[in-house]
Amino acid sequence: MFNLSQAIPLEDRANDLITVGELLVDMISNDYGGASEGGGYTRYFGGSPSNISINVKKLGIRSQVASAVGRDSLGTFLVNELQSAGMNTSGVQRVDESTSMVVITKSKETPVPIFYRGADSGLVYNDFVEQALIQSKIVHFSCWPISRVPSRDTVERVIEVAREHKLLIGFDPNYHPLIWQKGEDGVSYVKSIIPKVDILKPSEDDAERLFGPGTPAEQVGRFLELGAKLVIMTLGKDGALVSNGRETLAFDTKATRIEDTTGAGDAFWSGFYAGVVKGYPLKEALELGLAVSAYKLKFTGAVVNLPTLEVIKQQYNL
Amino acid sequence: MFNLSQAIPLEDRANDLITVGELLVDMISNDYGGASEGGGYTRYFGGSPSNISINVKKLGIRSQVASAVGRDSLGTFLVNELQSAGMNTSGVQRVDESTSMVVITKSKETPVPIFYRGADSGLVYNDFVEQALIQSKIVHFSCWPISRVPSRDTVERVIEVAREHKLLIGFDPNYHPLIWQKGEDGVSYVKSIIPKVDILKPSEDDAERLFGPGTPAEQVGRFLELGAKLVIMTLGKDGALVSNGRETLAFDTKATRIEDTTGAGDAFWSGFYAGVVKGYPLKEALELGLAVSAYKLKFTGAVVNLPTLEVIKQQYNL
Repeated sequence: MFNLSQAIPLEDRANDLITVGELLVDMISNDYGGASEGGGYTRYFGGSPSNISINVKKLGIRSQVASAVGRDSLGTFLVNELQSAGMNTSGVQRVDESTSMVVITKSKETPVPIFYRGADSGLVYNDFVEQALIQSKIVHFSCWPISRVPSRDTVERVIEVAREHKLLIGFDPNYHPLIWQKGEDGVSYVKSIIPKVDILKPSEDDAERLFGPGTPAEQVGRFLELGAKLVIMTLGKDGALVSNGRETLAFDTKATRIEDTTGAGDAFWSGFYAGVVKGYPLKEALELGLAVSAYKLKFTGAVVNLPTLEVIKQQYNL
Repeated sequence: MFNLSQAIPLEDRANDLITVGELLVDMISNDYGGASEGGGYTRYFGGSPSNISINVKKLGIRSQVASAVGRDSLGTFLVNELQSAGMNTSGVQRVDESTSMVVITKSKETPVPIFYRGADSGLVYNDFVEQALIQSKIVHFSCWPISRVPSRDTVERVIEVAREHKLLIGFDPNYHPLIWQKGEDGVSYVKSIIPKVDILKPSEDDAERLFGPGTPAEQVGRFLELGAKLVIMTLGKDGALVSNGRETLAFDTKATRIEDTTGAGDAFWSGFYAGVVKGYPLKEALELGLAVSAYKLKFTGAVVNLPTLEVIKQQYNL
């Protein structure tokens, strides 16, 4: 049981956070427009866990990635970007598949991402992953690596070793049918993972894809029924609803100006993890998550130039 | 046996050429540069069979495509482009996979394409394909659809029905290990297709990937040994070497100015097929292939604004 008024006790380790999973190219159209307009695209560094790893480093804690990219120019681009952000890239595996990509053609209607799964799901469990893992305090992953093998096997092993070595386990239940292998029951698999992790941060869309419609309180309840220990449901402009199964707290958003929502969820995770690592009580770590998310919302792009957690605290009076 | 001095007899049909296979997006970087420079890309209509279908229509014969794209914005873009070129798009199947894409980051060294196989290999054999096929004189395909199932099964059925209905079968043996399923012996499979078709147009690179190194004459001999009926080996600036197994002819290039070699092979096929349909003796159809290729080489892009075959004949004194 996580006490919302207390800090989460963490083991003393050489690294704070390791993120396991998708490192990929976001290929985003330059213009709004339908299928026949605007043929220009720009490649961006992408993949939520990698964004979180870069964010937390900026906030002032130590991080590491375990990911797989192709032996191709897009893979090299991603590795170079990680290096430019000062990250250690020894955890990036180069595999015999094309570097994964998401193509997003901006649209006045709902832009539907097109998923190209390749190298990311080729992540294998090896000595390097194990060593990086057991030297970390927190491990984080999303639905991407568990949607395909061999990366699913890797995450299953990561969960076992993380429990054995008392790491805190964060899971982003960002289930989407399009990333799952056709014909496989992704919803059931995601539900089976929920009791094995410590912290879940679903969005309303994630919850609806997993459970169907419901109020935020109903959805949080459904995660708890499945065995979730701490559910942080982010609600956009309505803040967040958090429950440890005994106590449920509503948090207001801290956003003042919304320029671009891309990466706001990753920014939340980043501020939250940084707060947890720095030993803040859970409630305060959650406030820090909301503050970093609010900061990110003022700028365009998934990864923005975050200041340290101390500067965020001052700016948001925390 | 194809007599090089005679026209190829064709059945009288409502359509001239049907191309079966890859319709995809070429995502090409705007700038030359390595992995860290130039993040801008432009999407282009791509896929060699579709390019050939559009080309021959411009040259003045009738064509049809049988291809599969995703139910996504890139698939809609490709369908729109075909329509803009005046093509009938009823042969384009929409399937539950992402529209196939090739990413090409231009480079001063050899640019290595990154293949994203998706919808293109989902092409199924259905009544529409069968009807379009038996109403055509010539069918054309490349190694893309035969490298994966179910499109491989589709092409196998296409070959059977085409033989039954006396279509001329053209095959581009553009084998590349990266388009093949990992662990599968693509070379053997391609070799097994060779005796089942009528006309092959390998490049030197294709031949080397299938057989290892050799002179053009040696490579042509290897295709013939496998049961090829007519081998047209294109040699870039050295023209082409053509053999029916009994007679071997060398053709000079007609290129005068080389702006961009992209699509030169498709342009050759297009001029050649147009000549065959118009009843020219094989030698003259080959000259027309070289002329259309030479015309295309003067312009940038895979598909250029070709004039009619009659204009090409005049310009190249044929």
